[in-house]
Amino acid sequence: MRPFATRLAHIEPFHVMDVLARARALEAQDRSIVHMEIGEPDFPTAAPIVQAGIQALQAGKTHYTPALGLPELRAEIARSYAPTVQVEAGRVVVTPGASGALQLIFGALLSPGDEVLLADPGYPCNRHFVRLFEGVPVGVPVDASSAYQLTAELIRRHWTPRTVAVLIASPSNPTGTIVDDAEMARIVRVVEELGGVLVVDEIYHGLTYGVEPSSVLRYSEHVFVVNSFSKYYGMTGWRLGWLVAPHTYIAALDKLAQNLFLAPNTPAQYAALAAFAAETRVELERRRQIFCERRDYLLPALRGLGFEIPVEPQGAFYLYAGCSRFTSDSQAFALTLLELAGVAITPGLDFGFHRPMQHLRFSYANTLENLKQGVNRLAQFLG
Amino acid sequence: MRPFATRLAHIEPFHVMDVLARARALEAQDRSIVHMEIGEPDFPTAAPIVQAGIQALQAGKTHYTPALGLPELRAEIARSYAPTVQVEAGRVVVTPGASGALQLIFGALLSPGDEVLLADPGYPCNRHFVRLFEGVPVGVPVDASSAYQLTAELIRRHWTPRTVAVLIASPSNPTGTIVDDAEMARIVRVVEELGGVLVVDEIYHGLTYGVEPSSVLRYSEHVFVVNSFSKYYGMTGWRLGWLVAPHTYIAALDKLAQNLFLAPNTPAQYAALAAFAAETRVELERRRQIFCERRDYLLPALRGLGFEIPVEPQGAFYLYAGCSRFTSDSQAFALTLLELAGVAITPGLDFGFHRPMQHLRFSYANTLENLKQGVNRLAQFLG
Repeated sequence: MRPFATRLAHIEPFHVMDVLARARALEAQDRSIVHMEIGEPDFPTAAPIVQAGIQALQAGKTHYTPALGLPELRAEIARSYAPTVQVEAGRVVVTPGASGALQLIFGALLSPGDEVLLADPGYPCNRHFVRLFEGVPVGVPVDASSAYQLTAELIRRHWTPRTVAVLIASPSNPTGTIVDDAEMARIVRVVEELGGVLVVDEIYHGLTYGVEPSSVLRYSEHVFVVNSFSKYYGMTGWRLGWLVAPHTYIAALDKLAQNLFLAPNTPAQYAALAAFAAETRVELERRRQIFCERRDYLLPALRGLGFEIPVEPQGAFYLYAGCSRFTSDSQAFALTLLELAGVAITPGLDFGFHRPMQHLRFSYANTLENLKQGVNRLAQFLG
Repeated sequence: MRPFATRLAHIEPFHVMDVLARARALEAQDRSIVHMEIGEPDFPTAAPIVQAGIQALQAGKTHYTPALGLPELRAEIARSYAPTVQVEAGRVVVTPGASGALQLIFGALLSPGDEVLLADPGYPCNRHFVRLFEGVPVGVPVDASSAYQLTAELIRRHWTPRTVAVLIASPSNPTGTIVDDAEMARIVRVVEELGGVLVVDEIYHGLTYGVEPSSVLRYSEHVFVVNSFSKYYGMTGWRLGWLVAPHTYIAALDKLAQNLFLAPNTPAQYAALAAFAAETRVELERRRQIFCERRDYLLPALRGLGFEIPVEPQGAFYLYAGCSRFTSDSQAFALTLLELAGVAITPGLDFGFHRPMQHLRFSYANTLENLKQGVNRLAQFLG
C-alpha cells in the first residue's frame, strides 16, 4: 500500500465533470446538448488582449518576471481601483489565476487546525484550499434570507477561538448574489473586532447587472481581495489573477510566490496590460450587457418552469435554482435532464453540504438562442 | 496581531534575490556586473515554439484545457520517452511549471508529520513544498563522496517509520551532478523495499554533457518524475512542466489539479507541442553544445582560481564550488565579490544547511565572453 495524503479524503473532484463527460459522449453520438453547466465565459479573449500577447511573444518576452508580477501590471491593476479607492501598486500581487492567489493567502494565513468561515453553498475550491493547508473549512449554511451570503451576524455566531479568517465571495458562485455595501462594511468591522482576517473573492467583480461593482477595499486596508482576469476580462486559459493584501503580508506572500510558482506566466502578463485599455473596456462592457440580457431572459423563464430562485442574482453568470418541486436528488435529476432532455446542468453537490440535493446551478455562459432552446427542452420534459 | 501561518518560519526567501537586487542597483549606477547568479537559460524561447504560441493565439486558443493538460501534448510528452522506455500518455500530467508538479505530488502524498528525504545541498523549493503541506523535509548531508547525491545506502540509513518519500534531483541544482544508472536502479529497489515513494526531479533532463540523458522511468512504473519545459526547452516564462505518475495516483492528481489550478496555461501548451519538432530539436541541441562549451571553460578556470569542485558536474548549468580557501562566510563573500569585483554569484545559503557558508553556486547561463570577463575579474580580485 502506497502513501496517500489524508487531505485527499476531504478534497472532492468537480461532480460537474461527470455531467460534462457524459454530455461529450452523447454529443459524440450526434445528440444535441445545450450546455448550461459550464463555468467559463463563452466569449474568446478580446482581440486587443490577444494582440498584446502576440506582440509580447514577437518581442521575445519569454523570460521570468519578478515573483510578485510585472511592476507595470501591478500599477495598472492598482489604478483600476481608482474610481472608488486608492490602492498602492506595492499591495498588488499578480498570480497564476485566482487559484494562485487563494493558495498564497491561505498558505500565509493558516496553521493546522485553524478555522475559516465560508458560505455554504459556495465555490468548492475555496474550502479545498483551506483543507489543502491543513486548515478547517467551516461551512455556514446560508439561504435566501441573507441572499445566500454570510452576514456580520452569522460570522459573529460561528466564530470560535480557532477561527482566523472569513471568506466572502461577492458576486457568488453558484448563487450570483452580492453582499451590499452596508453589510460589507459591517462584516469588515466585525472581523476586525474579532481579530481575524477577511478575504473577499471578487473574481466576478465587473460582471454585475443593475448595480455598480464595489470593492471591499473601500472599507479597509486590512483585508485580502482576490480577483481574476478570467471572468470579466475573459482570459480563462491564460491563468492570470491577482490579489491585494495588507502591507504587512507582502514579504510573506513574496517568498511564498517565489517558492510556489516563481512567477506568473509572462506573455499573459503582457497581454493583461491591454485589459485596461479604453477599446478593450468597450468590448468588455458590451459583453457585460449581453450577460445581463441573458440573465433577464433566463431568470423569469426558469421561475416560470417551477424552479425556485427567491433572490434576484445580480452578478456572475449563474442562477442557483431550487428544484424540490421535481426531485429530492438533484444529482440524479441532472443526469436525467441530460439524457432525456439534452440539457446539461451542474448539480448542487458541487457547492457544499447545505441542501445540495434540492438545488441545481444554471450557467448562462451560452448564447441567448441556446438558452432559449434549453428552456424549451426543459419545458417539454417537465411539462 | 494578525494571523501568520507557522509554516512561514520554515520557508525562506531566495537569498540570491538580495544579490540580484544589489546587482541591479549597482547597474543603475552604471557599474558593470557579470551575472553568474541567475538560474535561467540566457537564451530566449526557440523560434518554432514562440511561433506555435503565436499561432495558437491567432486561432483563439484562449479557453481552459482539461485539468491534466491537452491530450495531444500529454501524448507528445509520453512519446518523448520512447527511445528509452514506453510511457502511457495517461500517466502524464501537464502542470504550471515543475512547481505545479511538485505541489500536486506532495499534496497527494503527504499527511502532516510525514518525512521526505532530500539531499542537502539541494534546491530549496523542494524542501519548502514538503513543508507547505505540513510534511517534514529531512535534509541528508551529501558531499563529493557520493557526487552530492543520495545513495541507496544513505536512504536506508536515514529512513524512519515516518518516512514516506525520497526526492532525488538528477541533474542537481546546485551541484550539476547526476545519479548514474546503476545507483538509480539500486535506489528504486531500496525505496520500493521500504514501502515508500521515489520522486525524481528531472528538470534538467536533456542538459547533460558527455553523458546521455537517462530517466528513472526505465527502472520502475511506480515512481514520480517531475520535468519542465523551462530548462532544456527554454520556456521559463511560459510556466509549463509535467509529471509522470504511477497509474494509481492519476485520479487523485486530477482532482487536486482541478482544485489547485484548474488547468495549465493554454497558449503555452499549444506552444509546447512544437518543442518536440525536429527543427526545434536541432536548435535545442545547439544550445546544449553551447552550455557544454561554457562548462568546459568555467570548470578548470574556477579550479585554477582556487575554488574546490571535486566532482565534475555533468548537467544543468551550475558549478557548486567550495570557497573555504577565501572565506568562512560565503554570504558576505558573495556580496564582497559583487561590490568589489563586479561579479554576481549565489551564496550557498540558498541550498540548505550542510556547509552553506563554505560554498557558492556559479551559473553558466551567460555568454562565454561574459564568463571570461567574470573569471578575469575574480582572478584580479583574488590574486
